[in-house]
Amino acid sequence: MGNPRAAVLGMVGGGQLARMTAQAAVSLGLSLRVLADRSDDSAALVVPEVEIGAADDLAALSRFAKACDVVTFDHEHVPQDRLQAMEADGVVVRPGSRALLYAQDKLAQRQRLGEMGIPVPVFAPAATAADVAAFGDEHGWPVVLKAVRGGYDGRGVWVLSEPPADLPGANVYVEQRVPLVHELALQVARRPSGEMTAWPLVETVQQDGICVEVIAPAPRISPALAADAQSIAMRLAEELDVTGVLAVELFEAPGGLVVNELAMRPHNSGHWTINGSRTSQFEQHVRAVLDWPLGDPTPTAPVSVMVNLLGGDHTDLSQTLPRALGEVPEAAIHLYGKGARPGRKLGHVTVCGSDLVETRERARLAVALLRGEA
Amino acid sequence: MGNPRAAVLGMVGGGQLARMTAQAAVSLGLSLRVLADRSDDSAALVVPEVEIGAADDLAALSRFAKACDVVTFDHEHVPQDRLQAMEADGVVVRPGSRALLYAQDKLAQRQRLGEMGIPVPVFAPAATAADVAAFGDEHGWPVVLKAVRGGYDGRGVWVLSEPPADLPGANVYVEQRVPLVHELALQVARRPSGEMTAWPLVETVQQDGICVEVIAPAPRISPALAADAQSIAMRLAEELDVTGVLAVELFEAPGGLVVNELAMRPHNSGHWTINGSRTSQFEQHVRAVLDWPLGDPTPTAPVSVMVNLLGGDHTDLSQTLPRALGEVPEAAIHLYGKGARPGRKLGHVTVCGSDLVETRERARLAVALLRGEA
Repeated sequence: MGNPRAAVLGMVGGGQLARMTAQAAVSLGLSLRVLADRSDDSAALVVPEVEIGAADDLAALSRFAKACDVVTFDHEHVPQDRLQAMEADGVVVRPGSRALLYAQDKLAQRQRLGEMGIPVPVFAPAATAADVAAFGDEHGWPVVLKAVRGGYDGRGVWVLSEPPADLPGANVYVEQRVPLVHELALQVARRPSGEMTAWPLVETVQQDGICVEVIAPAPRISPALAADAQSIAMRLAEELDVTGVLAVELFEAPGGLVVNELAMRPHNSGHWTINGSRTSQFEQHVRAVLDWPLGDPTPTAPVSVMVNLLGGDHTDLSQTLPRALGEVPEAAIHLYGKGARPGRKLGHVTVCGSDLVETRERARLAVALLRGEA
Repeated sequence: MGNPRAAVLGMVGGGQLARMTAQAAVSLGLSLRVLADRSDDSAALVVPEVEIGAADDLAALSRFAKACDVVTFDHEHVPQDRLQAMEADGVVVRPGSRALLYAQDKLAQRQRLGEMGIPVPVFAPAATAADVAAFGDEHGWPVVLKAVRGGYDGRGVWVLSEPPADLPGANVYVEQRVPLVHELALQVARRPSGEMTAWPLVETVQQDGICVEVIAPAPRISPALAADAQSIAMRLAEELDVTGVLAVELFEAPGGLVVNELAMRPHNSGHWTINGSRTSQFEQHVRAVLDWPLGDPTPTAPVSVMVNLLGGDHTDLSQTLPRALGEVPEAAIHLYGKGARPGRKLGHVTVCGSDLVETRERARLAVALLRGEA
């Protein structure tokens, strides 16, 4: 009678990534445990086993980890010393601290990738405004200042057309602005035992530094470029010893691909896989960090378009949801259970189809309806 | 700040249907409330808002319903008087008691469908063994005795080749055994406002009265027969005023279609829709009972095969799951979190593909591996 105990997977962070991971875990017979900041965090609303605690509180992390076989992450905000302390304490942390460093510290990432010979923008540390001025004078203006840690969704990024009077923060670096053609992303998954799979290269569309749309597979891309992106991502996963899902954000620049960011967790650029791939990034992440065999990442439709639902000024989903459901019955709507604030990621919509223009139009229409703007 | 309160949907019963409905509800921004018999019921393991109570306990039902905007069901076991009491108390019960009667009481169903002119097996009430003998002598042997209420998965069904000495239970009826060619099922969804959608006709394969396999769409079926099945199901949904998902189980007999059973909830014959249709039966049921517009039921692949995972003598999923994941990476595995007992439904596997024979083979292989038999 009864199965032996199923594996217990814990995720630090209670955002929408944990919420969607929890949905995937249920299908595999698991119940995801979540360490959330607040009881009304997106994932905390839908899983039974929630602990409330901060991601930088070692006592909370240790208490949480004790009940888990494997601990993984919904974000990159657990400091290195906490990660290392957990590992020293015998907690199975996936991805491990040494891999996560390169998703947490952008300067370390630029340095490491540069050493590996992987194309990154020309960059330099910047301790003073004079360092920025010297960099711009040498490599040309404008330059991009970036926070070494903690920036996301356009925060922690400053484009400067001339030498600054002061630095915007203590821990920044400077890099050349890449004259990009497209922004792309490629996701792979890797198990501790080494097995890897890759989803197709996708195009990501940004507005004000926030991803608003993802097209899978990326249109207008040569097979050689797609293969190049995949080999960069697989090399990174292997050499940095990433376990779980790795998202590599890339610029398609006139001279070829340039790596922008790394994320070692399910990522906004992979939400389309829930509906558009045989195995979603969320299920794959669970399988990978538990060291279970990976699923088939083959797309299920010629094209999938994912559009983010950002809160508008008057977004009220309880009013707009029925109309969106009715007007775009083929849309897969995913809501995160968050209160609506302008600009906040409240959900996303994926439409799978065969014609890019039409599919994108339908996904955009569903989001416009959800925002109360159509 | 914050959205107005989302609709609160409650489901009576904590089995795998509630578990999979809960997964679907999360995507729509909802958290399903569940009234479960036990805290380790399949759905109770994965939803935060669980109440423990029996489905025939009016006090428990009323307490549960107070916190819900709409109450729906994972099974047919809430007695009519309790349903009617809830309705009299102002609870929004979907489907309503008058529709549910025909999913609960097989004799009432046969009588009603007969009056509607919908083909059902020749049947008669059976109060005594002599009634059965007279029926068999008139219509031919063997006959089928069925429990009026509560039978499922082969329970409550007796095939008799000769007049019985006694009846097996107090509340049974007798019907002609249909010399069937195939067993089929068709599911529709209907909103209170009348909107309906239909999934394609599927073939169900039974062993010992338990559904073991579903093929979608049903192979070797004429378009006319498929249209006939759909019009029967839509007529039943409308005339019985069903809200939510209605599954109609049919026999394909030499003389045409004959209705066997009705279920007014997500149903085993529709599990394939999670992976093989744009809108799953679980999401559709949520949308329908909340009177939200219905989703697109179009299949996403030429063929989907769903195989049930029934517990074997030595099934130990913690051991067998990794191998099944590895050998059949394209399989969508859905586990219900239940302890393994021989014959118990522990989960199901769906494979979507383009070739029926190969797709079925892959789905069967995944299940054999999960059972530890391959």
